[in-house]
Amino acid sequence: MAEERPPESETARVVFLPSGRRGTFAHGTTLLDAARSLGVYLESACGGRAICGRCQLLPVFGSFAKHNIESQPDHITAFSDVEARFKTDFGLRPDRRLGCQTRILGDMVVDVPPDSEMHRQVVRKRAEGRKLPLHPATKLYTVAVDEPDMHHPSGDLERLVTALESRFEVKVERCAPSVLRSLQKTLRAGDWKVTVAVHDDGRGPPTIVAAWPGSHNKLLGIAVDVGSTTIACHLMDLNRGRTLTSSGIMNPQIRFGEDLMSRVSYIMMNPDSLDDLVGAVREAIDALVGKVVADVGAERSDVLEAVFVGNPVMHHLLLGIDPTELGGAPFALATSGAQTLAASDLALELARGASVYTLPCIAGHVGADAAAVILSEKPYRDDLLTLIVDVGTNAEIVLGNSERVLACSSPTGPAFEGAELTSGQRAAPGAIERVRIDAETLEPRFKVIGCDLWSTEDGFEEAVAVTGVTGICGSGIIEAIGEMFLAGLLTTDGIIDGAKAAVSPRVVGDGRTFSYVLADGPPALRITQNDIRAIQLAKAALRAGIQLLMDRLGAASVDRIRLAGAFGSHIDVKYAMLLGMIPDCDLDKVTSIGNAAGTGAQMALLDTRARTEIEDVVTRIEKVETAVEPAFQEHFVAAMAIPHKTDPYARLASKVPLPERTASAGAARGGERRRRRRGTPQARTGETQPDET
Amino acid sequence: MAEERPPESETARVVFLPSGRRGTFAHGTTLLDAARSLGVYLESACGGRAICGRCQLLPVFGSFAKHNIESQPDHITAFSDVEARFKTDFGLRPDRRLGCQTRILGDMVVDVPPDSEMHRQVVRKRAEGRKLPLHPATKLYTVAVDEPDMHHPSGDLERLVTALESRFEVKVERCAPSVLRSLQKTLRAGDWKVTVAVHDDGRGPPTIVAAWPGSHNKLLGIAVDVGSTTIACHLMDLNRGRTLTSSGIMNPQIRFGEDLMSRVSYIMMNPDSLDDLVGAVREAIDALVGKVVADVGAERSDVLEAVFVGNPVMHHLLLGIDPTELGGAPFALATSGAQTLAASDLALELARGASVYTLPCIAGHVGADAAAVILSEKPYRDDLLTLIVDVGTNAEIVLGNSERVLACSSPTGPAFEGAELTSGQRAAPGAIERVRIDAETLEPRFKVIGCDLWSTEDGFEEAVAVTGVTGICGSGIIEAIGEMFLAGLLTTDGIIDGAKAAVSPRVVGDGRTFSYVLADGPPALRITQNDIRAIQLAKAALRAGIQLLMDRLGAASVDRIRLAGAFGSHIDVKYAMLLGMIPDCDLDKVTSIGNAAGTGAQMALLDTRARTEIEDVVTRIEKVETAVEPAFQEHFVAAMAIPHKTDPYARLASKVPLPERTASAGAARGGERRRRRRGTPQARTGETQPDET
Repeated sequence: MAEERPPESETARVVFLPSGRRGTFAHGTTLLDAARSLGVYLESACGGRAICGRCQLLPVFGSFAKHNIESQPDHITAFSDVEARFKTDFGLRPDRRLGCQTRILGDMVVDVPPDSEMHRQVVRKRAEGRKLPLHPATKLYTVAVDEPDMHHPSGDLERLVTALESRFEVKVERCAPSVLRSLQKTLRAGDWKVTVAVHDDGRGPPTIVAAWPGSHNKLLGIAVDVGSTTIACHLMDLNRGRTLTSSGIMNPQIRFGEDLMSRVSYIMMNPDSLDDLVGAVREAIDALVGKVVADVGAERSDVLEAVFVGNPVMHHLLLGIDPTELGGAPFALATSGAQTLAASDLALELARGASVYTLPCIAGHVGADAAAVILSEKPYRDDLLTLIVDVGTNAEIVLGNSERVLACSSPTGPAFEGAELTSGQRAAPGAIERVRIDAETLEPRFKVIGCDLWSTEDGFEEAVAVTGVTGICGSGIIEAIGEMFLAGLLTTDGIIDGAKAAVSPRVVGDGRTFSYVLADGPPALRITQNDIRAIQLAKAALRAGIQLLMDRLGAASVDRIRLAGAFGSHIDVKYAMLLGMIPDCDLDKVTSIGNAAGTGAQMALLDTRARTEIEDVVTRIEKVETAVEPAFQEHFVAAMAIPHKTDPYARLASKVPLPERTASAGAARGGERRRRRRGTPQARTGETQPDET
Repeated sequence: MAEERPPESETARVVFLPSGRRGTFAHGTTLLDAARSLGVYLESACGGRAICGRCQLLPVFGSFAKHNIESQPDHITAFSDVEARFKTDFGLRPDRRLGCQTRILGDMVVDVPPDSEMHRQVVRKRAEGRKLPLHPATKLYTVAVDEPDMHHPSGDLERLVTALESRFEVKVERCAPSVLRSLQKTLRAGDWKVTVAVHDDGRGPPTIVAAWPGSHNKLLGIAVDVGSTTIACHLMDLNRGRTLTSSGIMNPQIRFGEDLMSRVSYIMMNPDSLDDLVGAVREAIDALVGKVVADVGAERSDVLEAVFVGNPVMHHLLLGIDPTELGGAPFALATSGAQTLAASDLALELARGASVYTLPCIAGHVGADAAAVILSEKPYRDDLLTLIVDVGTNAEIVLGNSERVLACSSPTGPAFEGAELTSGQRAAPGAIERVRIDAETLEPRFKVIGCDLWSTEDGFEEAVAVTGVTGICGSGIIEAIGEMFLAGLLTTDGIIDGAKAAVSPRVVGDGRTFSYVLADGPPALRITQNDIRAIQLAKAALRAGIQLLMDRLGAASVDRIRLAGAFGSHIDVKYAMLLGMIPDCDLDKVTSIGNAAGTGAQMALLDTRARTEIEDVVTRIEKVETAVEPAFQEHFVAAMAIPHKTDPYARLASKVPLPERTASAGAARGGERRRRRRGTPQARTGETQPDET
């Protein structure tokens, strides 16, 4: 204990808003510890080391008669150097404090910011702030209801229904049993004025799903993107169409398998485990709901609607359906259609009458998340040909315009996410995400997540002292390989040129192949020949899928390209094109669209017309199964080259001078080997070991 | 142990059909004990004394290769004297045995008869065998479904929906989550042939609620009449419109109060008890479902539909609604409308996608059971004026024709059920149900339930030796008072004429009043002045309610009278009219319609058009609240007289010579006292103690 800190016997009262939870704490207690002891939802992932930034709080100063508290600036410890560094590194809004660094010195009122969110590196999926059309399935109505009359006996519910029809022309046909059970008390508590939530999605009988005495104006919904790795939840105000807060959580199913197919395999091997996987994802969603409603001071019972999107396996597991059929040909979905069900069917604790909508799936590998992306981008409304690519462990590819829309998926594997690579890691603080290599010296410089300085700039060492330089994330790998190619370190076939070892000590022999040392470490971070092969395989699979759709459409080029998802948000599109992940296109027509799946889910949450629209579009989408297309192998082999064996990438070359084409004879052979579709990443990587040198 | 019984060490194998449950039992074990030890549903209410008759079984003889059993007649004990007496007293079908009396002596196959039912005296509510229109909400469809095709990806569900539409023109819009979860396995288990149950009541999206691999033709529903005393359940084949079995159970809520109002009071005094009352009735229904499906060798999962009727309090408690508002003016129903909900909303274990329909209630005292009676009798379709009376502790009264239908209820109290009377008892073996009194000697004769002999006939004593003569049930009281009146023992005002004590020793002084000894006993069974007053109050309440409706309709008489319910089934209509319970009418136009509420429930179960019909009719019914009608008191006083103070009952008099009108001056005064509505029977009886003598 430092001497300047008051003795522990002194205590202070602290109130957390908006929940109003209060407690008395010893001076010196951190706000994070105080919040936790009261059950105020505040996350911390870094063990109080001022790294994760999840415990942000807003101290509020002034005289709070209601709480009988004088909240003064000197009732907490001053803004510390540690916080200042966090602010420099990661950004921190004015007046915000880190709960883990701020200690109580006197009575305080502290606000948990409604937009408090998890650290951006952990949850990159965020929906943008664009204004979305509002026509929700559930709406609020406040009405006065006639009191019962013995001489004209009718039920309280029936008089309520009559009032709704005469006042709002809303024809209610049903009432949720849970609402009916307490309706008499609700009506009398509000002195015959009541607010009801009516669910009417145009597909079932309009139903009263919630009731409050008197006036009530809080009506919330959640739009959830259930990813294999991350589950992202957006809490929305269904009255105003605004996103109130967004948050994410790791998908706890990860303990059953890192990627989709390993989870499906797990269930195939352990049939009794289905309930465990289903329960894991539902519980995670339920916890996430608890967090987002707490963040804005709302109640679970205010959440009347939920919309879910996800890939087919996540979609099925969320619904409690065994995904085994999705694990092998013919990749049969239990259902491709949109589903409307009750929140209780998914064991979610929302309002008791809450309903759930899941977007339709497109095919066995192209899920409701892809449908949501399509809904968000609406390529079917435009004459220009749009290519949408959402890269995860599977890449979903959509190509189309107002005439036709095609979709497929391609098994890119986890390489783009930095997994299975020698120095790869997930996107997180400390990961290299930007790379430049001097074409003459072959010396690299790089940036890591959480720091705006290049590794060659002054102060970089200090800035990254906390996180270290721990690995290379997906976008870092793409840039590194792109830069290696531009610097002449790589042949067109993707072989690290061993002759360069004479030019730079960074090119080092590695058995029969060579590696490039990107960072000296510790740990030393290298890019090996195997790493490049893994990325080549992934990008060739993606590019071959795109080419299949272009062939099917008879399109020689696309008018614009949209990169969706977390990977798409962080990649520099120039390098994506340089590597030939995407076809040649004007670079300024290639844009990242962020978490378009989340945006699509929000649209469907806010607007029942959007549901009808995407369901209609999905039935018209032409699905292409890459696994059985004979041309896939040919396209795949051509796409192994950098950027491509046959496509000159003329538009790109006009902006970025591409190296002269070079090829080592053996490389193509390795690529031509028949590739095991949907094999494990290890098997695939092993299969394509280059056998030259 | 009798010596002729084989030693206990010898055992035999017994198989119970249709469940196929089997076990090995020591010789000498009763079939009832054997069945119970295997969980075969077989009731016994009399402790194995061969009285209740609920444990009836059908031994089957022959060689059963499947079970490896030689089932021989000498493998059970011979038909016993006890069984023979039961057969004489209560009837027993050929070859049937009482499980409690039949002991195992060797390997046996025993059938639990599908029509096995509870003892008729316990459950008098039974629907008749009339053919009902068939148009159920849930129907079965067996179809072949296209196998999945990678090149035209669509969900298994969507291909099933397409098959249903092209084969049957059934447009399915939803699938129950529970069905969707296992749909892929179901389709593959049936090699792409599947039977689905589709629920389409015209009110919500047509929904697949169950699925079986291949062919399946079992589709069941239950129609349940939830009475305050008894819950009756009819298991129906929704494919063929037949009743498969009916059974009943005491309403376990009885431990919270004998009648409706005492249960409502209990909840008002103990608000936390609501869940207990709700749980009690639901658990009883669930147990009853278990029994009826076991009786016919079916599964709970075969039951896809349930229809419930009941008085408003039972209706509300079944739905989990606090009935407190029904306990006082303005007697507001939470809902008067029909409700459609999921079986799971009522915690009933039926098929997981099973749906529930409750008929509409008419008013705060006139429930869904009365609506069911109206649906069964359809007075609204006929030009003749029909009066329907359903007597329970409340009497529901319906009067109408194709022009208008009126309904009310009248608080008759429990007197008609034999409760609260000196020698009264519920209808059960041993209760007097028929009475004749010789007008000259004033000597009675009577019959008891379970015996066809008059008490004056030879063999009566022996026949009733088992049950005894234990009390007088409701219909017995009605006949006794009617006969006392015809014999001149009673004045028009209902006073037992003390002068008759000189004629017969059966008229005995009893403080200030006189009683009539109907049976010498032991126990001696008497009808006291108070008993007659209780019946007068009950019948006056009933008659006054009827008169209110007749007045409202401007009807001087009715064209026909239908007596519904258990009481109506057993009463001799002549005596009901003689007492003035019902208005004067041609006796041959007065009929009993049995459990018309159960019949109405069955109609609604089998035919969705019936649901629409009764909902429409109920909205048009004119409800009369007897409690606040000024004329009620006047009608009540006039109806205290036997048969009536002002109505001469001319039609009845033409068939039955009525005694000359006599009245003791004070009697009318007692009747004119203001009556506390819905007071306890004790309070009411106390209030009207005749103060003459």
